[in-house]
Amino acid sequence: MQYGYFDDKNKEYVITRPDTPKSWSNYLGSKEFGSIITNNAGGYTFYKSGGMGRFIRMRFNSVPMDQPGRYVYFHDHDSGDYWSASWQPVGRPLDQFKSQCCHGTAYTRISSEYKGIASQVTYFVPLGKLYEVWKVKITNTGSRKRTLSGFTYQELVGTWNALDDLLNLQYVQYTTQMDIQDGIIDHGTNINIPAMPDNFEEKDQGRHTFQALVGAKIIGYDTDREAFLGPYRTYANPLVVEKGKCTNSRGYGDNPCGSLQFEIILSPGESKELLVLVGIGKAGDEGKRIVEEYSDLHKADENLIQLMNHWHSRIKGITADTPDPLLNSMVNMWSIYNCMMTFAWSRAASLIYTSSERDGLGYRDTVQDFLGPMHAITDEVRERLELMITGQVSTGGAMPVVRPLSHKPGSEKAPSEEEYRSDDCLWLFNAVPAYIKETGDIAFYNKVLPYADKGEDTVFGHLKRAIGFTMERSGTHGLPCGLWADWNDCLRFGHNGESVFVAMQLRLALKEYTEIAALLGNQEEEVWARSLLENVDSTIQQNAWDGEWFLRGYRYDGMKFGSKENSEG
Amino acid sequence: MQYGYFDDKNKEYVITRPDTPKSWSNYLGSKEFGSIITNNAGGYTFYKSGGMGRFIRMRFNSVPMDQPGRYVYFHDHDSGDYWSASWQPVGRPLDQFKSQCCHGTAYTRISSEYKGIASQVTYFVPLGKLYEVWKVKITNTGSRKRTLSGFTYQELVGTWNALDDLLNLQYVQYTTQMDIQDGIIDHGTNINIPAMPDNFEEKDQGRHTFQALVGAKIIGYDTDREAFLGPYRTYANPLVVEKGKCTNSRGYGDNPCGSLQFEIILSPGESKELLVLVGIGKAGDEGKRIVEEYSDLHKADENLIQLMNHWHSRIKGITADTPDPLLNSMVNMWSIYNCMMTFAWSRAASLIYTSSERDGLGYRDTVQDFLGPMHAITDEVRERLELMITGQVSTGGAMPVVRPLSHKPGSEKAPSEEEYRSDDCLWLFNAVPAYIKETGDIAFYNKVLPYADKGEDTVFGHLKRAIGFTMERSGTHGLPCGLWADWNDCLRFGHNGESVFVAMQLRLALKEYTEIAALLGNQEEEVWARSLLENVDSTIQQNAWDGEWFLRGYRYDGMKFGSKENSEG
Repeated sequence: MQYGYFDDKNKEYVITRPDTPKSWSNYLGSKEFGSIITNNAGGYTFYKSGGMGRFIRMRFNSVPMDQPGRYVYFHDHDSGDYWSASWQPVGRPLDQFKSQCCHGTAYTRISSEYKGIASQVTYFVPLGKLYEVWKVKITNTGSRKRTLSGFTYQELVGTWNALDDLLNLQYVQYTTQMDIQDGIIDHGTNINIPAMPDNFEEKDQGRHTFQALVGAKIIGYDTDREAFLGPYRTYANPLVVEKGKCTNSRGYGDNPCGSLQFEIILSPGESKELLVLVGIGKAGDEGKRIVEEYSDLHKADENLIQLMNHWHSRIKGITADTPDPLLNSMVNMWSIYNCMMTFAWSRAASLIYTSSERDGLGYRDTVQDFLGPMHAITDEVRERLELMITGQVSTGGAMPVVRPLSHKPGSEKAPSEEEYRSDDCLWLFNAVPAYIKETGDIAFYNKVLPYADKGEDTVFGHLKRAIGFTMERSGTHGLPCGLWADWNDCLRFGHNGESVFVAMQLRLALKEYTEIAALLGNQEEEVWARSLLENVDSTIQQNAWDGEWFLRGYRYDGMKFGSKENSEG
Repeated sequence: MQYGYFDDKNKEYVITRPDTPKSWSNYLGSKEFGSIITNNAGGYTFYKSGGMGRFIRMRFNSVPMDQPGRYVYFHDHDSGDYWSASWQPVGRPLDQFKSQCCHGTAYTRISSEYKGIASQVTYFVPLGKLYEVWKVKITNTGSRKRTLSGFTYQELVGTWNALDDLLNLQYVQYTTQMDIQDGIIDHGTNINIPAMPDNFEEKDQGRHTFQALVGAKIIGYDTDREAFLGPYRTYANPLVVEKGKCTNSRGYGDNPCGSLQFEIILSPGESKELLVLVGIGKAGDEGKRIVEEYSDLHKADENLIQLMNHWHSRIKGITADTPDPLLNSMVNMWSIYNCMMTFAWSRAASLIYTSSERDGLGYRDTVQDFLGPMHAITDEVRERLELMITGQVSTGGAMPVVRPLSHKPGSEKAPSEEEYRSDDCLWLFNAVPAYIKETGDIAFYNKVLPYADKGEDTVFGHLKRAIGFTMERSGTHGLPCGLWADWNDCLRFGHNGESVFVAMQLRLALKEYTEIAALLGNQEEEVWARSLLENVDSTIQQNAWDGEWFLRGYRYDGMKFGSKENSEG
């Protein structure tokens, strides 16, 4: 089955039929304001953190799989028929409904045609902005005049804390207060509690987002989900869309939504364009200001071109030209593009993770993820590499998670002995030398950076302490202890079980350290590390290299599988 | 709008139209095996714990509100039409689809009629059993022979841990292995990991549930949700039901479900009965054994009558006969019935709580909840009252949550000073005297029970320590500190803020204690408590009784609203 193709020229993946077996997602925005969007316009939006700043709601693993999202519905006032600009959620028969989705560099464009009306919706976040734009173009491709209503739809949260919004219903159904000001929807949560601009992670504070529409006459609105959908209905057949008329509901508690109804009258061949603007702030403040900025709709086109140019200029550093065009597409565009998105958000935002525990950068993942975009966005990587080095504590071990929004090097609490992962700090021996090899910036090794809990050291000193941390936690066979976990995140070996995997990491660490010491002309350290390297090699050969345990990557003694108590002993 | 009425004679609430504005739920089963079911057959099922033992999946606050659940679909092989035995999820027009739901005492019966086919599904858990029964009766009310297929449907979990099942998709989509043995569906999760019968709370262990059908010919099955529903479809229009034919899918990872297709051929006026059995255990073991037990379908009728008699005999102790029949219905049946359900599960299972943190008995809630069913099920209440008294630690304060499945008095970890709620331990002064007044069992005060962490004392001694705990934690005005929370669960006053509410509780505690001491003839304790009571009265009058703070129930000094750091100081 063929669902699409790589468009190398435009750096897009073109999905030519919408009924893909699984959702195909794209990522919009920046570290400050991010969105996930699927090829059927499903997905959610967040500010700063997918866990602590989510304000457009999506339900995970739902039926159908990726609802709700950012929808534009149309109602034909002559026939009474209705559909959505993306195939889903209404899902008209595919012999009548043509739809194509282009996932590009931080933008997604969904084009559809149904019964003589073509629509194109381009979703993107302008560079450096705290709002997303849905650029909508509607064209009458038929031969008679059409009178339509359009309806925007997004489901809004009761709290920006994603976990509470999905689970703590006794809380989130009492938190929202919706308003409309000059035609702009204001989505307020906990607005009777003061805002705390300096404490993003506190969920109990007043917050606002807005939804505005520019370029068409607004003739109604709904901000209460139940009023929009109607009882026992779904996103496939909202009562308001079926009837062609919003109810002007004001959400107060329960489940809020944002829908603006707009009028579209199109002569044959005529097109109209409009913008939906969804962002952080109050309708009357940021909302109003941004609407004024977009009084000339072309500003959106300019911003989109600027965004494309920005991303296209970042896709660089490696070019493959092989006989396999798919390999070329992957290496030249999609691998590096996705590496950059992974770098931006680590595992904090995806269609499968919801946990607000992921509000932060997992140490292992994040340090590994540096390798992908190192050559393309070296300065950004270095900035975050320094952040992660300051997530190493003075014992030499690493904090399991570094929270960039609240991280305070020098005053973080060190993990308890039970919380350390054995592999975390050793990934620095992959990332730091890679940075030096990319830049030649040998002086970086002498840069002094604080530890997370107390004290400071050069980067070289940080690396040495990671080795020390590992050596001090060796088990009875002389191999590194598994601690809470190694790269295999599922087995808890504590201080009794040993990890051959981490022994290999330690070997790499010592080899790298020897070379760095040589590079810095530090003979003493070079000799020290070389000697340890020989010991480690010998220990590995004596103890790890006996078939079964080597293949499994573990040695253990008297451990019960799955028994956390024992493994932490 | 009228949606139903109380049927006092049968102790049922009858919902006469299915399109209620919100779901109306009933509770089936016992502390060992529980189910929630709505008037449209939505809901979930769990073993021992709504948080740690859930195996039929429902999504909270979904669209529509209460899906999925325990469905029976019908497909007419002549017309190709299909519907569900409950109005939802298919939702045929209500001018053609008649439906009535009777919520009774731990059973729910949904009766419907559509185009000449009547169906009645009665859901219940036989007394003391670890499975639920869906008793299905299908009648041809028309004048021509009908050839139908029926399809059971339930969505199954990837793990019994409800929170992981809803959120940790990278985990739960790799955990299941579905099988079918002698026509019985086997739902295995983590089956390559050993079962741990002695450690219910460990989620990483092999577990099995089964679904069987007795009384009709099984002609197909599906155990993979995607195969049953079809892509981009919902519970309203499953592909398998629309086509009238199961695909015999075997779920392996992804999202499992259980559906059995059965054949129904009915002459005019003819009825057929069958049973769906869903429970804990392996298809080939418990499943097969229970199917054999039900080879005579009448066994289900007997079990249902036994269940009704059991519950009706428990609804006792208070009878109201007032001129208001609704008040009578509420007092004589629904209040006590719901109090007993609340007693059984505390807040651990509901349509709005999902958190597995609720795997356990919240101290305050549970001790309060004793008052409702005290007069009707006194022995059961006493058993749990003793459990909760052993949830008090030797400081006199209480554990915020007591986990009955793992609670070990004498070796529990005491809460840290920051974790105590100020009101928790004082609710014993409501519950314990109520038990004595109900039973006259004064000797209970002298019963020795352990503290949660260490040591033991008489019940009288436990009460005294609760007073001591509170007195030792008084603030600058002499009123009890608010600690992590008082009955208002939202404000953290720590040791700087004081709670007038808890001062009132303390006053009640001292008054009760004085009376108990007098009852026990313990003059020394009586004098001690009476003197403290006078002091507390005086302190309350001096400090708490000044308008604003009294009304708010708090005194505080220099606290920032919502600032947890300050409040824990």
